[in-house]
Amino acid sequence: MPTDTPQPSFVLVRPQMGENIGAAARAMWNFGLDRMRIVDPRDGWPNPAATAMASGAGRLLDEAQLAPDLPSALSDCHYVYATTARGRELTKPILSPEEAMQDAARRIADGQKVAVMFGPERSGLENEDVVRASAIITVPVNPDFPSLNLAQCVLLTAYEWRRASAAVPEGRVHMHNTEWASQTEIEALAVHYEDRMQEAGFFYPDHKATSMRQTLRNFWSRMPLTQADTRLLHGILRQMVRWKDRGDGGA
Amino acid sequence: MPTDTPQPSFVLVRPQMGENIGAAARAMWNFGLDRMRIVDPRDGWPNPAATAMASGAGRLLDEAQLAPDLPSALSDCHYVYATTARGRELTKPILSPEEAMQDAARRIADGQKVAVMFGPERSGLENEDVVRASAIITVPVNPDFPSLNLAQCVLLTAYEWRRASAAVPEGRVHMHNTEWASQTEIEALAVHYEDRMQEAGFFYPDHKATSMRQTLRNFWSRMPLTQADTRLLHGILRQMVRWKDRGDGGA
Repeated sequence: MPTDTPQPSFVLVRPQMGENIGAAARAMWNFGLDRMRIVDPRDGWPNPAATAMASGAGRLLDEAQLAPDLPSALSDCHYVYATTARGRELTKPILSPEEAMQDAARRIADGQKVAVMFGPERSGLENEDVVRASAIITVPVNPDFPSLNLAQCVLLTAYEWRRASAAVPEGRVHMHNTEWASQTEIEALAVHYEDRMQEAGFFYPDHKATSMRQTLRNFWSRMPLTQADTRLLHGILRQMVRWKDRGDGGA
Repeated sequence: MPTDTPQPSFVLVRPQMGENIGAAARAMWNFGLDRMRIVDPRDGWPNPAATAMASGAGRLLDEAQLAPDLPSALSDCHYVYATTARGRELTKPILSPEEAMQDAARRIADGQKVAVMFGPERSGLENEDVVRASAIITVPVNPDFPSLNLAQCVLLTAYEWRRASAAVPEGRVHMHNTEWASQTEIEALAVHYEDRMQEAGFFYPDHKATSMRQTLRNFWSRMPLTQADTRLLHGILRQMVRWKDRGDGGA
């Protein structure tokens, strides 16, 4: 059963190698997409090479909609994108994958059915395919080496779909059993170091002492310290003092 | 000759299949990146299977920097990202590919040398690799099917680099008479603290010693340290040892 998440269908137009169809299925499912349509595959359908390659995403192939030609594959869609570096002679919006998937997310939220077409491996979509699209998606590749394969193009588009459709992400630093240090905790740490380093004779010579203290203070405030970090740093200093107090290894 | 465009280096850590190294080179060059580093490849170097796969991007392999281990591969870098779904037990920033490459673009504009690590195909980066990173990149894949391969992970990161570098923003951190610490400098600092704290008996009890060392290592790599900071921290530690050696104030 497909997931019930509203999403675009990805339409493989006249794909050639079964391996590439399988890899495309994997790339879709990597980003949670599971609606594949396949138009007139060169080697017939089902395709054992596709199934072998798709391992883990084979369900997408089992549930794929097979169509004899592009018009029937797209018949229920409201808005269609064509992935191509061509179509420059057609008057049509040209979007980046990001723009296209943001646009698709809005359309799908409005209740539209949306599809994205991907061309055959060797030649890509023909102009007669591209004219059926409402807009073009062009990946901003290196003009000196624009050789994305089918599964890579599917991967980047699926990735942008996930980005466009995901909620705003959580906070960014993963905190493992700790919290950010408060100003009080940072202050206690700064004072602890300042006091011990004073005893140790660190702030020397006298005319540099003020700027050395300031540098140390600035250091603590600039570091992104967690509570665990402050415990670690207190612990290091306490251990050094214990080492001194034990007096072993003294010169 | 590599392009002279400022850019991150992509570091393949202990890659296994030559085909995957070649595919990674293609994925980089698709988005205009051409600085590859390779750490301890399983099948030696050069690798004919890599060359065959890289067709059109073979130059990246010819010019790749080979390193026997990760520290030497990263020695000149100021900021390092690790691509991994792991590291959840480490306190470290976790960024999306987009956030990471935007951050990288700013750092590179500030004159920093930046690297992105990619782990071996089968197992990914180990925690002992990840602790050397300043931040983690996690691709927001489908949790039910998180099976990105090496070249796909490289492709998505390179794609985000191209998007982020299209409009490089100005630098943000005002550096007062200092430069960012390199990995060599951070490594020296980490070793200095680890050695002295070992002597001081800090890593105790024994069954906690490994995790305490890892915590300390992770701490250094997560802090935004300048060269001035590393001098300060070396100085603090040296002064504590001198204090101990003088033996005054002993209990």
